Amino acid sequence: MKKIGFIGLGVMGQPMALNLLNKYKALYVYTRTEKKAEKLLEKGATWCQTIPDLAKKCDVIITIVGLHTDVQDVYLGKNGLINSCHPNTILIDMTTSSPTLAKEIYDKALEKNIHVLDAPVSGGDIGAQNATLSIMVGGDQKVFNDCKEILDTMGKNVVYQGPSGSGQHTKMVNQIVIAGNMIGVVEAMVYAKQANLDINKVLKSITSGAAGSWQLQYNAPKIIEKDYTPGFFIKHFIKDIHLAQDEARNVALDLPGLDLVESLYASLMENGYGNLGTQALIKYYEDDEI
Amino acid sequence: MKKIGFIGLGVMGQPMALNLLNKYKALYVYTRTEKKAEKLLEKGATWCQTIPDLAKKCDVIITIVGLHTDVQDVYLGKNGLINSCHPNTILIDMTTSSPTLAKEIYDKALEKNIHVLDAPVSGGDIGAQNATLSIMVGGDQKVFNDCKEILDTMGKNVVYQGPSGSGQHTKMVNQIVIAGNMIGVVEAMVYAKQANLDINKVLKSITSGAAGSWQLQYNAPKIIEKDYTPGFFIKHFIKDIHLAQDEARNVALDLPGLDLVESLYASLMENGYGNLGTQALIKYYEDDEI
Repeated sequence: MKKIGFIGLGVMGQPMALNLLNKYKALYVYTRTEKKAEKLLEKGATWCQTIPDLAKKCDVIITIVGLHTDVQDVYLGKNGLINSCHPNTILIDMTTSSPTLAKEIYDKALEKNIHVLDAPVSGGDIGAQNATLSIMVGGDQKVFNDCKEILDTMGKNVVYQGPSGSGQHTKMVNQIVIAGNMIGVVEAMVYAKQANLDINKVLKSITSGAAGSWQLQYNAPKIIEKDYTPGFFIKHFIKDIHLAQDEARNVALDLPGLDLVESLYASLMENGYGNLGTQALIKYYEDDEI
Repeated sequence: MKKIGFIGLGVMGQPMALNLLNKYKALYVYTRTEKKAEKLLEKGATWCQTIPDLAKKCDVIITIVGLHTDVQDVYLGKNGLINSCHPNTILIDMTTSSPTLAKEIYDKALEKNIHVLDAPVSGGDIGAQNATLSIMVGGDQKVFNDCKEILDTMGKNVVYQGPSGSGQHTKMVNQIVIAGNMIGVVEAMVYAKQANLDINKVLKSITSGAAGSWQLQYNAPKIIEKDYTPGFFIKHFIKDIHLAQDEARNVALDLPGLDLVESLYASLMENGYGNLGTQALIKYYEDDEI
């Protein structure tokens, strides 16, 4: 049986790793902050002191780290995966990261006969816990097929999107849609408040029709309650928007809607709201300080 | 039993009037183009030569005409409803029109003891045919209660939103949400094409998650097929956006997202695309002429 490694035990990584451990009964883990591995080690996972240590022991290695610069370090650093893995290892990066970086890693790995998939997710920590994540996968179809069972252990909507980078590109598409939905929801609610409407009644009228969306259904009620706890952090969303904009600019693609949403969230970041949820976009319109 | 009149037999009005006729077995109708009444007359509706002629015969009169300037004529013109109705008549305007105009009509009607509801709809011609419209109603609660059965004959999600103008304001909220959803969907698809993704696969990954929306579900597949037939005309959508912007400007409310979408659709109008569906927004990004 393939030996599986897991790097990055944050809010997403921990429950994902736990699902793998529950199924495969063995898992090699490494993360920068060892304390975050405790729960998994109690349940039988094996701690590795360094990335090369983990790399030597594993056939399939899954990573989900914070920023695309972390991905760069973990994969391309001196003690990174590409320098440490044996040939035929399969690496699966599930961080939301740069499509261009994904292709760079894929190419460098290929020179050493190492196989890489980019497989970012959506569905949040709840999706990670319940193994209901949507997983969007780029890389070689054959490698995807070989890993499908492992990916199915973490998600329920696992789709092969195409060659290396396609998983990350698909996640960018997801975030661009959300950017538009978010500004629509928020401006509509600002208008509704100004018009003295009862927003709960408004939602009853509009949620099931052509204005309906996941964002309207789940974030509009939070906005009514002034509940800005993060389902998804502003600081993470703006990171994703920057990645998408980098890709768009590379091909001279002009996305004015995304530009606008980026600039509004940038204002919120500057005002110290990065740790709030994306629904706090309404503060751009309602907070006199911004 | 109350005698019901219906003014405006366009794409929406005809099937709505037919549902009323089927239920109440009698209906007085008037529309500018008499030919559009033929089907209803065959089924037993009664033709009225003029608005005053219809007004004299009816206790409840429903209107759904094209533009808010038509609403102005039909209600406030010399031979309009307010000058022609007997006291205690109930007027229900189901046109998507100006909230400010709705309140003006309400006030002028009140002086003559005539009652007015603003009750715009969403759900399109299919919703009109199947009596599944969402109907958003402003005006007096008591008048709404008296008309609920009549409205239920045309829709399935009939919600009292508040005082006069609230129905129209709610429809504006609906359109503002859609404006955001639309730009998100279209920019995401432009990005996806540029990244050489298989958009059907992308939709499989993202439609059921946090990016999901009615617009993504129904309009993205049309965009893939380059099918720009109108579910909702660009020329009508931009009319609604203008109405919302007029209201927002009245209270110095700045909605940059709506402004942006308005400017993109304005470009499409100028290029002669007003008769295409709203999903043709993608032409702004892909058509070199714009």
